Amino acid sequence: MPTGRAPEPAVLRLSIYLRCLRQAQAEGITTLSSAGIEKRTGITAGQVRKDLSHFGEFGKPGLGYSVDSLTARLIQIMNLNETHKVVIAGAGNLGAALAGYEGFRSGAFSLAAIFDNNLAKIGRRLWDLEIIDISEMPKFCKEANVEIGIITAPANAAQEIADTMAEGGIRAILNFSPTRILGQKGVVVRNVDLTKELEVLCFYLPASKPAGDA
Amino acid sequence: MPTGRAPEPAVLRLSIYLRCLRQAQAEGITTLSSAGIEKRTGITAGQVRKDLSHFGEFGKPGLGYSVDSLTARLIQIMNLNETHKVVIAGAGNLGAALAGYEGFRSGAFSLAAIFDNNLAKIGRRLWDLEIIDISEMPKFCKEANVEIGIITAPANAAQEIADTMAEGGIRAILNFSPTRILGQKGVVVRNVDLTKELEVLCFYLPASKPAGDA
Repeated sequence: MPTGRAPEPAVLRLSIYLRCLRQAQAEGITTLSSAGIEKRTGITAGQVRKDLSHFGEFGKPGLGYSVDSLTARLIQIMNLNETHKVVIAGAGNLGAALAGYEGFRSGAFSLAAIFDNNLAKIGRRLWDLEIIDISEMPKFCKEANVEIGIITAPANAAQEIADTMAEGGIRAILNFSPTRILGQKGVVVRNVDLTKELEVLCFYLPASKPAGDA
Repeated sequence: MPTGRAPEPAVLRLSIYLRCLRQAQAEGITTLSSAGIEKRTGITAGQVRKDLSHFGEFGKPGLGYSVDSLTARLIQIMNLNETHKVVIAGAGNLGAALAGYEGFRSGAFSLAAIFDNNLAKIGRRLWDLEIIDISEMPKFCKEANVEIGIITAPANAAQEIADTMAEGGIRAILNFSPTRILGQKGVVVRNVDLTKELEVLCFYLPASKPAGDA
Protein backbone atom coordinates (compact mmCIF):
# COMPACT_ATOMS: atom_id res chain seq x y z
CA MET A 1 0.00 0.00 0.00
CA PRO A 2 1.60 3.31 -0.99
CA THR A 3 1.71 5.91 1.75
CA GLY A 4 0.36 9.34 0.93
CA ARG A 5 0.38 12.41 3.09
CA ALA A 6 -2.01 10.87 5.60
CA PRO A 7 -1.68 7.64 7.58
CA GLU A 8 -3.75 4.79 6.18
CA PRO A 9 -6.10 4.51 9.20
CA ALA A 10 -7.06 8.16 8.63
CA VAL A 11 -7.79 7.39 4.97
CA LEU A 12 -9.96 4.46 6.03
CA ARG A 13 -11.92 6.77 8.30
CA LEU A 14 -12.48 9.36 5.54
CA SER A 15 -14.90 6.93 3.97
CA ILE A 16 -16.77 6.66 7.27
CA TYR A 17 -16.96 10.45 7.59
CA LEU A 18 -18.23 10.70 4.04
CA ARG A 19 -21.04 8.24 4.73
CA CYS A 20 -21.91 10.11 7.93
CA LEU A 21 -21.99 13.45 6.08
CA ARG A 22 -24.17 12.07 3.28
CA GLN A 23 -26.57 10.71 5.85
CA ALA A 24 -26.69 14.12 7.56
CA GLN A 25 -27.22 15.76 4.18
CA ALA A 26 -30.15 13.44 3.51
CA GLU A 27 -31.62 14.50 6.86
CA GLY A 28 -31.35 18.16 5.89
CA ILE A 29 -28.62 18.96 8.41
CA THR A 30 -26.37 21.82 7.24
CA THR A 31 -23.61 21.92 9.88
CA LEU A 32 -22.07 19.19 12.00
CA SER A 33 -19.50 19.53 14.78
CA SER A 34 -16.77 16.97 15.41
CA ALA A 35 -18.80 15.99 18.49
CA GLY A 36 -21.78 15.45 16.20
CA ILE A 37 -19.68 13.24 13.97
CA GLU A 38 -18.55 11.31 17.04
CA LYS A 39 -22.15 10.70 18.00
CA ARG A 40 -22.94 9.30 14.56
CA THR A 41 -19.78 7.27 13.92
CA GLY A 42 -18.36 6.30 17.29
CA ILE A 43 -15.06 7.93 16.30
CA THR A 44 -13.94 10.47 18.92
CA ALA A 45 -14.21 14.17 18.11
CA GLY A 46 -10.46 14.57 18.64
CA GLN A 47 -9.72 11.82 16.16
CA VAL A 48 -12.14 13.38 13.65
CA ARG A 49 -10.36 16.76 13.86
CA LYS A 50 -6.92 15.14 13.66
CA ASP A 51 -7.87 12.99 10.67
CA LEU A 52 -9.38 15.87 8.72
CA SER A 53 -6.39 18.11 9.48
CA HIS A 54 -4.27 15.87 7.23
CA PHE A 55 -6.30 16.98 4.25
CA GLY A 56 -6.72 20.70 4.76
CA GLU A 57 -8.53 23.31 6.81
CA PHE A 58 -12.16 22.48 7.35
CA GLY A 59 -14.81 23.91 9.63
CA LYS A 60 -14.79 26.88 11.97
CA PRO A 61 -14.07 26.61 15.70
CA GLY A 62 -17.35 26.70 17.57
CA LEU A 63 -19.39 26.50 14.37
CA GLY A 64 -18.51 23.04 13.11
CA TYR A 65 -18.28 21.80 9.56
CA SER A 66 -20.52 22.78 6.68
CA VAL A 67 -22.03 19.45 5.67
CA ASP A 68 -22.26 20.36 1.98
CA SER A 69 -18.78 21.75 1.56
CA LEU A 70 -17.03 19.05 3.62
CA THR A 71 -18.90 16.38 1.65
CA ALA A 72 -17.80 17.95 -1.63
CA ARG A 73 -14.20 18.25 -0.45
CA LEU A 74 -14.02 14.65 0.74
CA ILE A 75 -15.48 13.40 -2.55
CA GLN A 76 -12.76 15.35 -4.35
CA ILE A 77 -9.95 14.18 -2.03
CA MET A 78 -11.02 10.55 -2.44
CA ASN A 79 -11.35 10.80 -6.24
CA LEU A 80 -15.01 9.91 -6.06
CA ASN A 81 -16.18 12.70 -8.37
CA GLU A 82 -15.89 10.41 -11.39
CA THR A 83 -17.20 6.91 -12.03
CA HIS A 84 -14.63 4.11 -11.74
CA LYS A 85 -15.14 0.93 -13.74
CA VAL A 86 -14.83 -2.32 -11.81
CA VAL A 87 -14.57 -5.98 -12.86
CA ILE A 88 -14.97 -9.10 -10.73
CA ALA A 89 -12.86 -12.22 -11.33
CA GLY A 90 -14.64 -15.28 -9.92
CA ALA A 91 -18.36 -15.92 -10.34
CA GLY A 92 -18.86 -18.11 -7.25
CA ASN A 93 -21.08 -17.30 -4.25
CA LEU A 94 -18.94 -14.38 -3.17
CA GLY A 95 -18.65 -13.01 -6.70
CA ALA A 96 -22.42 -13.24 -7.02
CA ALA A 97 -22.92 -11.48 -3.69
CA LEU A 98 -20.56 -8.66 -4.66
CA ALA A 99 -22.08 -8.35 -8.14
CA GLY A 100 -25.39 -7.60 -6.46
CA TYR A 101 -23.87 -4.71 -4.49
CA GLU A 102 -26.13 -1.69 -4.96
CA GLY A 103 -23.15 0.68 -5.06
CA PHE A 104 -22.36 -0.71 -8.54
CA ARG A 105 -25.61 0.66 -9.96
CA SER A 106 -25.00 4.33 -9.21
CA GLY A 107 -22.37 6.77 -8.08
CA ALA A 108 -18.63 6.33 -8.04
CA PHE A 109 -18.46 2.67 -9.11
CA SER A 110 -19.79 0.81 -12.11
CA LEU A 111 -19.50 -2.95 -12.53
CA ALA A 112 -18.39 -3.55 -16.12
CA ALA A 113 -17.93 -7.34 -16.22
CA ILE A 114 -17.66 -10.61 -14.30
CA PHE A 115 -15.10 -13.22 -15.38
CA ASP A 116 -14.66 -16.91 -14.64
CA ASN A 117 -12.63 -19.77 -16.08
CA ASN A 118 -15.37 -22.35 -15.52
CA LEU A 119 -16.92 -23.31 -18.88
CA ALA A 120 -20.18 -24.18 -17.11
CA LYS A 121 -20.47 -20.58 -15.90
CA ILE A 122 -19.23 -18.65 -18.94
CA GLY A 123 -22.15 -17.19 -20.89
CA ARG A 124 -24.59 -17.47 -17.98
CA ARG A 125 -26.06 -14.28 -16.56
CA LEU A 126 -25.35 -12.95 -13.09
CA TRP A 127 -27.62 -10.05 -12.20
CA ASP A 128 -27.51 -7.81 -15.28
CA LEU A 129 -24.20 -9.09 -16.67
CA GLU A 130 -23.04 -12.10 -18.65
CA ILE A 131 -20.13 -14.10 -17.23
CA ILE A 132 -17.15 -13.76 -19.59
CA ASP A 133 -14.20 -16.12 -20.17
CA ILE A 134 -11.35 -14.88 -17.98
CA SER A 135 -8.90 -15.22 -20.88
CA GLU A 136 -10.64 -12.18 -22.38
CA MET A 137 -10.04 -10.07 -19.27
CA PRO A 138 -6.89 -8.11 -20.29
CA LYS A 139 -8.34 -7.08 -23.65
CA PHE A 140 -11.72 -6.22 -22.14
CA CYS A 141 -10.18 -4.13 -19.35
CA LYS A 142 -7.92 -2.19 -21.70
CA GLU A 143 -10.76 -1.40 -24.11
CA ALA A 144 -13.23 -0.46 -21.39
CA ASN A 145 -10.62 1.45 -19.37
CA VAL A 146 -11.33 -0.54 -16.20
CA GLU A 147 -9.51 0.78 -13.14
CA ILE A 148 -10.47 -1.59 -10.33
CA GLY A 149 -10.41 -5.39 -10.18
CA ILE A 150 -12.03 -7.54 -7.49
CA ILE A 151 -10.70 -11.06 -6.98
CA THR A 152 -13.03 -13.67 -5.48
CA ALA A 153 -11.26 -16.70 -6.95
CA PRO A 154 -9.57 -19.46 -4.88
CA ALA A 155 -6.21 -18.66 -3.26
CA ASN A 156 -4.12 -20.65 -5.72
CA ALA A 157 -5.42 -18.62 -8.67
CA ALA A 158 -5.28 -15.17 -7.08
CA GLN A 159 -1.75 -14.07 -7.93
CA GLU A 160 -2.08 -15.08 -11.58
CA ILE A 161 -5.39 -13.22 -11.83
CA ALA A 162 -3.82 -10.15 -10.24
CA ASP A 163 -1.01 -10.27 -12.81
CA THR A 164 -3.54 -10.60 -15.62
CA MET A 165 -5.46 -7.62 -14.24
CA ALA A 166 -2.26 -5.54 -14.21
CA GLU A 167 -1.69 -6.61 -17.81
CA GLY A 168 -5.13 -5.21 -18.62
CA GLY A 169 -4.20 -1.84 -17.13
CA ILE A 170 -6.03 -2.25 -13.84
CA ARG A 171 -4.50 0.01 -11.19
CA ALA A 172 -6.26 -1.10 -8.02
CA ILE A 173 -7.17 -4.58 -6.78
CA LEU A 174 -9.46 -5.65 -3.98
CA ASN A 175 -8.53 -9.21 -3.10
CA PHE A 176 -11.09 -11.40 -1.30
CA SER A 177 -9.21 -14.67 -1.84
CA PRO A 178 -7.58 -16.05 1.32
CA THR A 179 -4.03 -15.22 0.29
CA ARG A 180 -1.97 -12.08 0.11
CA ILE A 181 -1.07 -10.75 -3.30
CA LEU A 182 2.39 -9.32 -3.49
CA GLY A 183 3.58 -6.06 -5.04
CA GLN A 184 2.90 -5.48 -8.68
CA LYS A 185 4.46 -2.20 -9.70
CA GLY A 186 1.96 0.60 -10.08
CA VAL A 187 -0.95 -1.45 -8.76
CA VAL A 188 -2.55 -0.82 -5.38
CA VAL A 189 -3.78 -3.95 -3.59
CA ARG A 190 -6.10 -4.25 -0.62
CA ASN A 191 -6.74 -7.65 0.92
CA VAL A 192 -10.10 -8.38 2.55
CA ASP A 193 -9.61 -11.53 4.54
CA LEU A 194 -12.30 -13.33 6.54
CA THR A 195 -9.76 -15.35 8.51
CA LYS A 196 -7.92 -12.19 9.51
CA GLU A 197 -11.13 -10.45 10.55
CA LEU A 198 -12.21 -13.42 12.69
CA GLU A 199 -8.77 -13.76 14.24
CA VAL A 200 -8.66 -10.08 15.14
CA LEU A 201 -12.07 -10.43 16.83
CA CYS A 202 -10.66 -13.34 18.84
CA PHE A 203 -7.72 -11.25 19.95
CA TYR A 204 -10.15 -8.74 21.46
CA LEU A 205 -12.56 -11.34 22.93
CA PRO A 206 -11.11 -11.63 26.43
CA ALA A 207 -11.12 -7.87 26.89
CA SER A 208 -14.87 -7.76 26.39
CA LYS A 209 -17.29 -8.89 29.04
CA PRO A 210 -20.14 -11.24 28.18
CA ALA A 211 -23.14 -9.04 27.47
CA GLY A 212 -25.79 -11.69 27.91
CA ASP A 213 -24.96 -13.13 31.32
CA ALA A 214 -28.22 -14.19 32.90
CA MET B 1 -13.00 -1.35 19.21
CA PRO B 2 -11.31 -1.72 22.61
CA THR B 3 -7.65 -0.84 22.66
CA GLY B 4 -5.31 -3.38 24.18
CA ARG B 5 -1.62 -3.06 24.79
CA ALA B 6 -0.86 -2.99 21.09
CA PRO B 7 -2.15 -0.64 18.39
CA GLU B 8 -4.89 -2.14 16.22
CA PRO B 9 -2.85 -2.14 12.99
CA ALA B 10 -0.27 -4.32 14.75
CA VAL B 11 -3.01 -6.71 15.83
CA LEU B 12 -4.27 -6.88 12.25
CA ARG B 13 -0.78 -7.81 11.09
CA LEU B 14 -0.44 -10.59 13.71
CA SER B 15 -2.91 -12.58 11.67
CA ILE B 16 -0.77 -12.07 8.56
CA TYR B 17 2.36 -13.19 10.41
CA LEU B 18 0.54 -16.25 11.68
CA ARG B 19 -0.47 -17.27 8.16
CA CYS B 20 3.08 -16.70 6.94
CA LEU B 21 4.49 -18.84 9.78
CA ARG B 22 2.03 -21.65 9.16
CA GLN B 23 2.97 -21.64 5.50
CA ALA B 24 6.68 -21.78 6.42
CA GLN B 25 5.90 -24.62 8.85
CA ALA B 26 4.15 -26.53 6.06
CA GLU B 27 7.27 -26.07 3.93
CA GLY B 28 9.44 -27.55 6.69
CA ILE B 29 11.20 -24.27 7.48
CA THR B 30 12.31 -24.08 11.14
CA THR B 31 13.60 -20.50 11.49
CA LEU B 32 12.61 -17.30 9.78
CA SER B 33 14.21 -13.85 10.07
CA SER B 34 12.22 -10.62 9.98
CA ALA B 35 13.69 -10.14 6.50
CA GLY B 36 12.32 -13.57 5.56
CA ILE B 37 8.90 -12.53 6.86
CA GLU B 38 9.17 -9.33 4.80
CA LYS B 39 9.84 -11.35 1.67
CA ARG B 40 6.74 -13.48 2.27
CA THR B 41 4.32 -10.81 3.45
CA GLY B 42 5.47 -7.52 1.97
CA ILE B 43 5.56 -6.04 5.48
CA THR B 44 8.98 -4.49 6.19
CA ALA B 45 11.36 -6.30 8.54
CA GLY B 46 11.44 -3.24 10.82
CA GLN B 47 7.66 -3.24 11.08
CA VAL B 48 7.64 -6.98 11.82
CA ARG B 49 10.09 -6.54 14.71
CA LYS B 50 8.21 -3.52 16.05
CA ASP B 51 4.84 -5.27 15.85
CA LEU B 52 6.05 -8.41 17.60
CA SER B 53 7.78 -6.37 20.32
CA HIS B 54 4.34 -5.33 21.58
CA PHE B 55 3.65 -8.92 22.56
CA GLY B 56 6.89 -10.09 24.13
CA GLU B 57 10.44 -11.11 23.38
CA PHE B 58 10.70 -13.34 20.34
CA GLY B 59 13.63 -14.52 18.26
CA LYS B 60 17.36 -14.08 18.67
CA PRO B 61 19.36 -11.32 16.95
CA GLY B 62 21.10 -12.81 13.93
CA LEU B 63 19.26 -16.12 14.29
CA GLY B 64 15.70 -15.11 13.58
CA TYR B 65 12.49 -16.56 14.94
CA SER B 66 11.80 -20.22 15.64
CA VAL B 67 8.84 -20.92 13.36
CA ASP B 68 7.29 -23.47 15.73
CA SER B 69 7.54 -21.45 18.91
CA LEU B 70 6.49 -18.13 17.36
CA THR B 71 3.51 -19.86 15.74
CA ALA B 72 2.48 -21.35 19.09
CA ARG B 73 2.89 -18.02 20.89
CA LEU B 74 0.85 -16.10 18.31
CA ILE B 75 -1.93 -18.70 18.48
CA GLN B 76 -1.99 -18.23 22.25
CA ILE B 77 -1.86 -14.41 22.09
CA MET B 78 -4.73 -14.34 19.60
CA ASN B 79 -6.87 -16.83 21.58
CA LEU B 80 -6.88 -19.25 18.70
CA ASN B 81 -6.00 -22.29 20.80
CA GLU B 82 -9.66 -23.09 21.31
CA THR B 83 -12.56 -23.38 18.87
CA HIS B 84 -14.92 -20.40 18.73
CA LYS B 85 -18.52 -20.92 17.71
CA VAL B 86 -19.86 -18.61 15.02
CA VAL B 87 -23.35 -17.86 13.68
CA ILE B 88 -24.36 -16.01 10.52
CA ALA B 89 -27.44 -13.77 10.40
CA GLY B 90 -28.61 -13.41 6.81
CA ALA B 91 -28.80 -16.31 4.34
CA GLY B 92 -28.48 -14.28 1.12
CA ASN B 93 -25.66 -14.53 -1.41
CA LEU B 94 -23.07 -13.17 0.98
CA GLY B 95 -24.27 -15.37 3.84
CA ALA B 96 -24.08 -18.37 1.53
CA ALA B 97 -20.57 -17.42 0.42
CA LEU B 98 -19.37 -17.02 4.00
CA ALA B 99 -21.08 -20.25 5.11
CA GLY B 100 -18.95 -22.06 2.56
CA TYR B 101 -15.74 -20.68 4.07
CA GLU B 102 -13.38 -23.61 4.62
CA GLY B 103 -12.06 -22.12 7.88
CA PHE B 104 -15.43 -23.03 9.47
CA ARG B 105 -14.78 -26.75 8.99
CA SER B 106 -11.57 -26.97 11.03
CA GLY B 107 -9.38 -25.06 13.43
CA ALA B 108 -10.31 -22.05 15.50
CA PHE B 109 -13.80 -21.40 14.11
CA SER B 110 -16.89 -23.52 13.87
CA LEU B 111 -20.08 -22.40 12.15
CA ALA B 112 -22.95 -23.38 14.44
CA ALA B 113 -25.98 -21.91 12.63
CA ILE B 114 -27.33 -19.62 9.93
CA PHE B 115 -30.38 -17.47 10.62
CA ASP B 116 -32.81 -15.58 8.42
CA ASN B 117 -36.22 -13.97 8.85
CA ASN B 118 -37.42 -14.95 5.37
CA LEU B 119 -40.02 -17.73 5.67
CA ALA B 120 -39.08 -18.98 2.18
CA LYS B 121 -35.52 -19.62 3.39
CA ILE B 122 -36.14 -20.98 6.90
CA GLY B 123 -35.81 -24.77 6.95
CA ARG B 124 -33.82 -24.91 3.71
CA ARG B 125 -30.26 -26.22 3.83
CA LEU B 126 -27.18 -24.13 3.15
CA TRP B 127 -24.08 -26.26 2.90
CA ASP B 128 -24.30 -28.60 5.90
CA LEU B 129 -26.65 -26.45 7.98
CA GLU B 130 -30.36 -25.74 8.09
CA ILE B 131 -31.44 -22.09 7.99
CA ILE B 132 -33.12 -21.24 11.31
CA ASP B 133 -35.72 -18.58 12.12
CA ILE B 134 -33.84 -15.55 13.44
CA SER B 135 -36.30 -15.20 16.33
CA GLU B 136 -34.65 -18.31 17.78
CA MET B 137 -31.18 -16.75 17.67
CA PRO B 138 -30.80 -15.51 21.29
CA LYS B 139 -31.88 -18.84 22.78
CA PHE B 140 -29.74 -20.84 20.35
CA CYS B 141 -26.66 -18.73 20.97
CA LYS B 142 -26.98 -18.92 24.74
CA GLU B 143 -27.45 -22.69 24.73
CA ALA B 144 -24.65 -23.35 22.24
CA ASN B 145 -22.33 -20.78 23.85
CA VAL B 146 -21.78 -18.93 20.58
CA GLU B 147 -19.12 -16.22 20.81
CA ILE B 148 -19.04 -14.64 17.36
CA GLY B 149 -21.86 -13.35 15.15
CA ILE B 150 -21.58 -12.41 11.49
CA ILE B 151 -24.17 -10.02 10.05
CA THR B 152 -24.86 -10.17 6.31
CA ALA B 153 -28.36 -8.71 6.51
CA PRO B 154 -29.44 -5.41 4.88
CA ALA B 155 -28.31 -2.17 6.53
CA ASN B 156 -31.71 -1.32 8.03
CA ALA B 157 -31.80 -4.60 9.98
CA ALA B 158 -28.19 -4.66 11.15
CA GLN B 159 -28.41 -2.76 14.44
CA GLU B 160 -31.42 -4.76 15.63
CA ILE B 161 -29.66 -8.02 14.77
CA ALA B 162 -26.55 -6.87 16.62
CA ASP B 163 -28.67 -6.11 19.69
CA THR B 164 -30.29 -9.54 19.44
CA MET B 165 -26.87 -11.14 19.19
CA ALA B 166 -25.74 -9.31 22.33
CA GLU B 167 -28.90 -10.58 24.04
CA GLY B 168 -27.80 -14.09 23.13
CA GLY B 169 -24.44 -13.60 24.81
CA ILE B 170 -22.41 -13.01 21.65
CA ARG B 171 -19.28 -11.04 22.45
CA ALA B 172 -17.87 -10.26 19.02
CA ILE B 173 -19.61 -9.20 15.81
CA LEU B 174 -18.33 -9.04 12.26
CA ASN B 175 -20.65 -6.74 10.34
CA PHE B 176 -20.81 -7.01 6.56
CA SER B 177 -23.92 -4.88 6.17
CA PRO B 178 -23.26 -1.44 4.69
CA THR B 179 -23.81 0.45 7.92
CA ARG B 180 -21.83 0.99 11.08
CA ILE B 181 -23.08 -0.67 14.24
CA LEU B 182 -22.65 1.45 17.31
CA GLY B 183 -21.34 0.47 20.73
CA GLN B 184 -23.04 -2.28 22.61
CA LYS B 185 -21.41 -2.64 25.98
CA GLY B 186 -19.09 -5.63 26.22
CA VAL B 187 -19.40 -6.50 22.53
CA VAL B 188 -16.57 -6.00 20.05
CA VAL B 189 -17.67 -4.98 16.56
CA ARG B 190 -15.68 -5.01 13.34
CA ASN B 191 -17.22 -3.57 10.19
CA VAL B 192 -16.25 -5.01 6.81
CA ASP B 193 -17.50 -2.57 4.25
CA LEU B 194 -17.21 -2.95 0.48
CA THR B 195 -17.92 0.73 -0.15
CA LYS B 196 -15.16 1.74 2.24
CA GLU B 197 -12.67 -0.66 0.65
CA LEU B 198 -13.46 0.61 -2.85
CA GLU B 199 -13.30 4.24 -1.73
CA VAL B 200 -9.92 3.71 -0.08
CA LEU B 201 -8.62 2.16 -3.31
CA CYS B 202 -9.82 5.26 -5.17
CA PHE B 203 -7.98 7.51 -2.75
CA TYR B 204 -4.75 5.73 -3.66
CA LEU B 205 -5.45 5.52 -7.40
CA PRO B 206 -3.74 8.71 -8.55
CA ALA B 207 -0.56 7.82 -6.67
CA SER B 208 -0.16 4.63 -8.71
CA LYS B 209 0.97 4.66 -12.31
CA PRO B 210 -0.97 2.76 -14.97
CA ALA B 211 0.68 -0.62 -15.26
CA GLY B 212 -0.67 -1.57 -18.66
CA ASP B 213 0.10 1.47 -20.80
CA ALA B 214 0.60 0.25 -24.34
